[in-house]
Amino acid sequence: MNDNKALQPTSIIIFGATGDLAKRKLFPAFYNLFIEGRMPEQFNIVALGRADKNNEDFKNYVKENLVLFSRNQKSIDAEWEKFQSHITYFRHQIDEDNSYQELDVKLKSLDDEYGLRANRLFYLSIAPNFVSVISGHLKNAALAPNPAQDRIIIEKPFGHDKSSAIELNSLLSRTFEEEQIYRIDHYLGKETVQNILAFRFGNSIFEPIWNCHYVESVQITVAEEVGVESRGGFYEGTGALKDMIQNHLLQILCMVAMEQPASLDAGEIRDRKVDVLKSIRRIPLDRVSHYAVRGQYGKGTLNGKELKAYREEGGVAPDSNTETFAAIKFYLDNERWDGVPFYVRTGKRMKEKHSYITIQFKPLPQSTFIAGKHALSQNKLIINIQPLMDIRLQFMTKKPGLTVELKPVEMVFDYFSCKEDTPEAYETLLLDALEGDLTLFMRSDQVEEAWDVVKTIQEYWESNPDPSFPNYAAGSSGPEQCELLLQREEHSWE
Amino acid sequence: MNDNKALQPTSIIIFGATGDLAKRKLFPAFYNLFIEGRMPEQFNIVALGRADKNNEDFKNYVKENLVLFSRNQKSIDAEWEKFQSHITYFRHQIDEDNSYQELDVKLKSLDDEYGLRANRLFYLSIAPNFVSVISGHLKNAALAPNPAQDRIIIEKPFGHDKSSAIELNSLLSRTFEEEQIYRIDHYLGKETVQNILAFRFGNSIFEPIWNCHYVESVQITVAEEVGVESRGGFYEGTGALKDMIQNHLLQILCMVAMEQPASLDAGEIRDRKVDVLKSIRRIPLDRVSHYAVRGQYGKGTLNGKELKAYREEGGVAPDSNTETFAAIKFYLDNERWDGVPFYVRTGKRMKEKHSYITIQFKPLPQSTFIAGKHALSQNKLIINIQPLMDIRLQFMTKKPGLTVELKPVEMVFDYFSCKEDTPEAYETLLLDALEGDLTLFMRSDQVEEAWDVVKTIQEYWESNPDPSFPNYAAGSSGPEQCELLLQREEHSWE
Repeated sequence: MNDNKALQPTSIIIFGATGDLAKRKLFPAFYNLFIEGRMPEQFNIVALGRADKNNEDFKNYVKENLVLFSRNQKSIDAEWEKFQSHITYFRHQIDEDNSYQELDVKLKSLDDEYGLRANRLFYLSIAPNFVSVISGHLKNAALAPNPAQDRIIIEKPFGHDKSSAIELNSLLSRTFEEEQIYRIDHYLGKETVQNILAFRFGNSIFEPIWNCHYVESVQITVAEEVGVESRGGFYEGTGALKDMIQNHLLQILCMVAMEQPASLDAGEIRDRKVDVLKSIRRIPLDRVSHYAVRGQYGKGTLNGKELKAYREEGGVAPDSNTETFAAIKFYLDNERWDGVPFYVRTGKRMKEKHSYITIQFKPLPQSTFIAGKHALSQNKLIINIQPLMDIRLQFMTKKPGLTVELKPVEMVFDYFSCKEDTPEAYETLLLDALEGDLTLFMRSDQVEEAWDVVKTIQEYWESNPDPSFPNYAAGSSGPEQCELLLQREEHSWE
Repeated sequence: MNDNKALQPTSIIIFGATGDLAKRKLFPAFYNLFIEGRMPEQFNIVALGRADKNNEDFKNYVKENLVLFSRNQKSIDAEWEKFQSHITYFRHQIDEDNSYQELDVKLKSLDDEYGLRANRLFYLSIAPNFVSVISGHLKNAALAPNPAQDRIIIEKPFGHDKSSAIELNSLLSRTFEEEQIYRIDHYLGKETVQNILAFRFGNSIFEPIWNCHYVESVQITVAEEVGVESRGGFYEGTGALKDMIQNHLLQILCMVAMEQPASLDAGEIRDRKVDVLKSIRRIPLDRVSHYAVRGQYGKGTLNGKELKAYREEGGVAPDSNTETFAAIKFYLDNERWDGVPFYVRTGKRMKEKHSYITIQFKPLPQSTFIAGKHALSQNKLIINIQPLMDIRLQFMTKKPGLTVELKPVEMVFDYFSCKEDTPEAYETLLLDALEGDLTLFMRSDQVEEAWDVVKTIQEYWESNPDPSFPNYAAGSSGPEQCELLLQREEHSWE
C-alpha cells in the first residue's frame, strides 16, 4: 500500500453515515481506494448519525457491510485494522447549532493531529430537504470557509424542476463557491461512460462519421429490472423523467453528442456539455405527446415470478399517475446533429437490466451489393454500459461460401476481461472529489439547463394524468406506444 | 446431394492431369464441389496425360490424393463411387495432331451420352511454354469453336514481361474470344480476399474514411515460410517480382484501392481494377532503387532447423541474381489516393507464413487526449488473408482505472469459426468457370497493365545484379533495406 502522497490531509464528514448509500457504496469505495493506496496519507472519516452509537459498534457495522458490498473481498481481514483506525462515529443532530459547534471542535482536533488545517470533504448522503438546513449550519458555524480546501458532495435530486434547482443552487451559493460543489451523478463515474470521450476523441476514424451525414439515429436505453422496491413513497413524487432522464440519460446524451473540448479541463468539458443541453430543441407543451411516451407497470411475471403492479407497491397511491417508464425523442439544433433523432428511454420492471447506447448509421446511399431493398443491414455501433461492458461494431461481410451473399457480423471489444480491476463509479468520483477534479460532476448551469430540457414534458404529464396507466406489464419491454415513437420515423429500437 | 440443375452438362478436359496442381488442388476441388451438389448434373472429367495408364490405376491415384489433400475427408468412402464414375483417363500427346482428333472423338461420344453438345472447359495445368501449342491444336481440331460454351482456364505466368504477355494474349485470341479465357489467380478466390469488396461496399462506415484524407499508408504483405523447394530451376527464371508481385499483390492492391463498380458485373469490376493499375505511378528506371528493394535469402535457421541459402538449392546458379524477396512503394495518381504510399512486400523463407493487409490511418490532427507527442497509437485496420482469417480494428480506449490513461485495444471479427465450411480458392474459381462468371479472373488488359507497372523494376533488376546478395537470412524478416524503404516516410512495417 503506497499512500497517495500528492493528496492533502483530509477530513471526510459523511452526513447520513448510517444510511443505505453509505453502507453500500461510500464505505466500500473509501475502503477500496484505501487498499489501493489512493487515499491521502492522513485522513479521517467522521461518520455522522443521529443515534447514540458506540464507535466500535459502528465500525463493526461498517465491516459487516464491507463483506457484503465491497468489490474487493480478499484482503478485508488483513487491511481492516489499518482502515478502521481512520473512522470515527460522531453523534450529530442535523438541525441543532450545538451539533455543528461540536463538529467544529472535532475537526479542529483532527487538524491538530495532522499538524495543519486539513482539507474538508462534506458528503451529504441525506434526503434532499435537509440540504438547505445543513448548508446554512455549515455557513453559520464557519465549517467550510476555505474555497480552496473545503468541498461538498451532493446527491441528486438537484431540485425537482427548473425553478427549485435555481433556488437550491442559489442557496448553496451562500455557503459555497461553485468550484466547491460536487453534484454527483454516479453514471458519469462508470468506466463505460467515461470511455465515450476517449473512444471519440482518442481515435481518428470515428469522428469523421460521428455526425448527421452518417448517423441516422442515436438510442440511449437504461432499463432496470427492479421495481420501486421499498422506495414507493419517494418514487411517487419523482417518476422516471425526474429520476433518470433529467440526469443520467441527458448526461450520457451530452457525452455522445458534445463537440471536442479544447482540453480535458473540467470547465472546458462542462462547457461543451452545456452547449449540447442548450442545443436540444425544446418540445412545445402541446406537442409533448408526439415526442414523449410515458408508462407505468402493471402486474406481470418475470422468470416465473409474479410481480406486483406499481399501484400495489407500498407507499404508492392506488390511482397513481407517476410514470415508471419514459421515452423521449430529442432533436439537437446544431450543425453536427441536424435532423438526427436522439431516442432516450428508461423504465423500471423491464425484462432485463441493460444500459446501452446505439449509434445507428445511415443505410448505404448506393451499393453494388444491394440486391433487394432490405438485403443489407445498416451499420451499428453499440456501446454497452452495464451489465455488459463492451463495444460492438455491426457490419456486413461476405458469407463464406461459393455464392456472393452478405451477412451481418459483429466485431467485439470487451473492456473488462478482469472485472475486479474495474473501479466502482463511486471510487472514481470520490477520488476525483478528494483531488479537486470537477470534470465528472454537474455544474449548476448543467443542472438547470437539463431541467429546462424536460420542463414542458414535466408540466404536461403532471397536469394531464394518463388514463391508460398501467400500460405495460412488469417484466415486459415497456408500453406499446414507445415503439410507435420510432415507427413514425421508420426506425425501431435496438 | 442436389446436383446443380442450373449448370449445363460439361466436359472438363484437364491438360496435365497427372501433375502436381491436379492432384493437390483440382481433383479435391471438383470432388468437394461434387459432394456439395455444385457440379452440373451431367459432367465428365477427361484427365489427359502422356503416360499409358490404366483407367483404374489413375482413379486409385486420384483417390489416394483426395485422402491427402481434400479439405473434406469424412465422406470420401461414401461418395467416391459416385464421383469416380465421372473420371476418364485419356492418353494424350500435347504436340500430336492425332491426339486432338482422338480427343474430338471422345468429346463427341460424351456429347452423345449427354444427348446434346455439352459445354467444354479446358484446364491447362501445364508448363507455360505449351500454352501456344495446345491453343493452336485446339483451333486446328476445332475443339473449342463455340464462344458461348467453350472455355479455357490458364494458370500463371501469363507471359514473363509486358511484350510476351501481349504476344500470348494475341496468340490465345486466335483460338478464343476474350470472354472464353479464364486466367486464374488463386489469390482472388480466397474468401478473405473476396470479402474486401463486401467489406468496403456493403457498409456505410468504412468508405467515408477510405481515402487519402484519413489513410496514411496501405501495406500488403505476402510472406511465405517455404523456400523454393524442388522448383529451383523454374524459380531461377522468375523471382519474387514476377512470381508474386505482378499478379497476387497487385491484384490485392486493386481490390483495396478500386472505386465502387456500378454493379457486380465482371466487366464493371475488371474495369475498375484496370483503372487502379493505370493510376499506379510508373517508377523511372533511374529511381528503381529508391522505390524498390530486393532480397535473396542466405543460410539461416528457423525453429532450430538449419536452412540452405537460395544459391545452394537444387537448380540454382551459385551466383544467382534472382530475388526471393521484393518490396515496392507505389503511389496511385488519382483523387482518392493522392500521396498515400502503398507498400507491398513478399518473400520466401520468411520467419512465418502470413498474408495480410494493413490500412494505417493518419494520426489525430488534434486531440484533447494527446499528452506527449506519441501518447496515442494510430488507428489501424488489419485484414488477415491467411493463415489467420480475420479483421482487426485497432483503436484507443480508456484504460480501466482511476486515472485517465488511454491504451490501444483490438476489436476482432474472425470469419471462420468453422473452417471446414470455407471453400478452397480453387473450388470458388472452378465453380465460377463452370458457371461462366469471369469476375475473379484476369482480363488481358489487367495482365498487360500489371506487367507495365513492374516493367522498369524488372529491367533495372535484370541488368544490375545486386552485389549484396544474399542479403537476408532464411527464417528472418527480410533484408534490412526493406525497413529503410518505409523509414524515409517515417512509417514502419506492421
